[in-house]
Amino acid sequence: MYAARRARLRERCHAGGSAGALVSRAANVRYLAGAAPQGAVLLLGKREDLLVWAGPEDDRLPEGSRPDEALRVHALSAPGGDPAVAAADLAAAQGAESLAVEEHHLTVARHRAIGSVAPRLRLADLGGAVEQLRLVKDEAEIACLRIAAEIADQALGELLESILVGRTERHLALELERRLVDHGADGPAFATAVATGPHSGRRGHRPTDRRVEEGDFLSVCLGAVYRGYRCEIGRTFVIGTSPADWQIELYDLVFAAQRAGREALTPGAAYRDVDRAARQVLDSAGYADRLPELTGHGVGLEIDEEPQLAPAAMGKLDACVPVTVEPGVHLPGRGGVRIDDTLVVRPEADGGPELLTITTKELLAL
Amino acid sequence: MYAARRARLRERCHAGGSAGALVSRAANVRYLAGAAPQGAVLLLGKREDLLVWAGPEDDRLPEGSRPDEALRVHALSAPGGDPAVAAADLAAAQGAESLAVEEHHLTVARHRAIGSVAPRLRLADLGGAVEQLRLVKDEAEIACLRIAAEIADQALGELLESILVGRTERHLALELERRLVDHGADGPAFATAVATGPHSGRRGHRPTDRRVEEGDFLSVCLGAVYRGYRCEIGRTFVIGTSPADWQIELYDLVFAAQRAGREALTPGAAYRDVDRAARQVLDSAGYADRLPELTGHGVGLEIDEEPQLAPAAMGKLDACVPVTVEPGVHLPGRGGVRIDDTLVVRPEADGGPELLTITTKELLAL
Repeated sequence: MYAARRARLRERCHAGGSAGALVSRAANVRYLAGAAPQGAVLLLGKREDLLVWAGPEDDRLPEGSRPDEALRVHALSAPGGDPAVAAADLAAAQGAESLAVEEHHLTVARHRAIGSVAPRLRLADLGGAVEQLRLVKDEAEIACLRIAAEIADQALGELLESILVGRTERHLALELERRLVDHGADGPAFATAVATGPHSGRRGHRPTDRRVEEGDFLSVCLGAVYRGYRCEIGRTFVIGTSPADWQIELYDLVFAAQRAGREALTPGAAYRDVDRAARQVLDSAGYADRLPELTGHGVGLEIDEEPQLAPAAMGKLDACVPVTVEPGVHLPGRGGVRIDDTLVVRPEADGGPELLTITTKELLAL
Repeated sequence: MYAARRARLRERCHAGGSAGALVSRAANVRYLAGAAPQGAVLLLGKREDLLVWAGPEDDRLPEGSRPDEALRVHALSAPGGDPAVAAADLAAAQGAESLAVEEHHLTVARHRAIGSVAPRLRLADLGGAVEQLRLVKDEAEIACLRIAAEIADQALGELLESILVGRTERHLALELERRLVDHGADGPAFATAVATGPHSGRRGHRPTDRRVEEGDFLSVCLGAVYRGYRCEIGRTFVIGTSPADWQIELYDLVFAAQRAGREALTPGAAYRDVDRAARQVLDSAGYADRLPELTGHGVGLEIDEEPQLAPAAMGKLDACVPVTVEPGVHLPGRGGVRIDDTLVVRPEADGGPELLTITTKELLAL
């Protein structure tokens, strides 16, 4: 599988006029090599492919990060060396004349160091070629995402059964992260957001010491990592028995926007049209100036991958692309609502989009 | 305070021939601006200083990240823009002819985008100028580190009072992180390492599902963030009533190495001499081929700052530089010992190095 991915990348490199490629972005290395020990880079060389890394003290790869067996591993002997520089040196020694590097990941300083160690190597830009390969997932990848989503659903479900009033955002977030690990996650997919009262509905809210109060909106966004794959779920609840009218109205509105976004997920749909489907519901209700930059994004080995579901995004959805749909409205001083699912784009004939995060989207009063 | 830091940086820029500077590395932005909202960059401009950022949905800076009031904040209007590119554009509009950028942080792609938007701006390299300013801490910074260390000591102390046998590394790590937050940390300073049995003594060990067993070494490394400042403590314990002879011998050896390192911390001491003091104890006991790349490093707004206490490090310690001293030995298949403190270098007249992490370094049998 990893060898097949590398073969596809190599084709693209050759088409772009480069004999080899140096992949340095961690998620890209993992995608192509099966593992990405800290700082490791992947060299698609003229003669062979190499995983180059600095090596830990005891010269063993850490558990759970074994690379593809077909790949030769090259550990640097001198401490403090840059694997990217060493890999470029090896490429030059193999007789390569050109090497495509990830200019969107390498710093100017590292790029210059590569140029100094291998002055005859012509450095080209690999651009987002690996990110493009990563966009459409195979069924093994989707299976990991499905398990990650199940874990997040379980952690969230357990939280809802516990007493919430009086507990701080910070503690609820930590408890959710512990439950993710309890249920088999490698860890949280991103910093868990728990937002109460006036904080609710803010995207990426960092938990504070504010405590849950009666009458609050409570919005929670969390995700699990499973074998490297990251999902995302977000829900908003109301605390106490009787939501206020404005809360019910706002919830229904965001729910309608999120449903419209989900229903727009079909192979061939333009990214911007999916965004518009969700956005125009909020827009026509008078929230045009409060709208998020995007209403969804791809997930996979990173939590925020391509595509972006946003007004200016270019491109069309393919089948087997997992994305989030997560519109929200936040009213400063009052709070707001965010509803977020991870789904996989599937053709109509296969039943349409596959919902991975299945926790109810009714407005629960807790 | 922040204005004074910016003034010092501006002097260095002028001395280097640049009229202004663009600071993009988050910890550097925070150091100079008092806050670093996600993606924000700091422009030391010709006419004024600006914090440029993409802005959240609701156009407010997140709580707890208010920048210095003397600084003008410029939020980008268009979504998806790069604050670094926008800042360079503003610098050019202010009439700047040159701008020093952080080439060790900016990617090749961002650097090129800056060049395109402001083609007449001569881009120079700011190098590690801000990192150099950050090296010596003021007393307000040390006060934050002292509190961070207290929090880590408390979290570790509580863990030692609980039952450990049968619990997994992963759960112990999560519990420690929860306790850090309980005691007022903003969060963990880095991924908490809990290593049992054969894993013990490995630097940066990622917790697994292995459970604590009788007779194990248990090594723990954790730290708290307090107001952005990060400390580190590492201890090794033995599980059960009677440590084996090899465990006592190895512990005593690492303890002696760590003490030698601590005692070498004086203003004016070469980084490499501090490293050698600790290293030669392990070396002369026959562990020359098992030694870590470094035996300590600076801490502050990042957990792994300059200086490095390593054989090839250049430079000398100043007073008020906080560093870790953390030698260790790991024997593959058996385990090992690591002892790690955070200390502040102080002159002899002030009592010598100030130990921030005060948990006992006796070999406790738990």
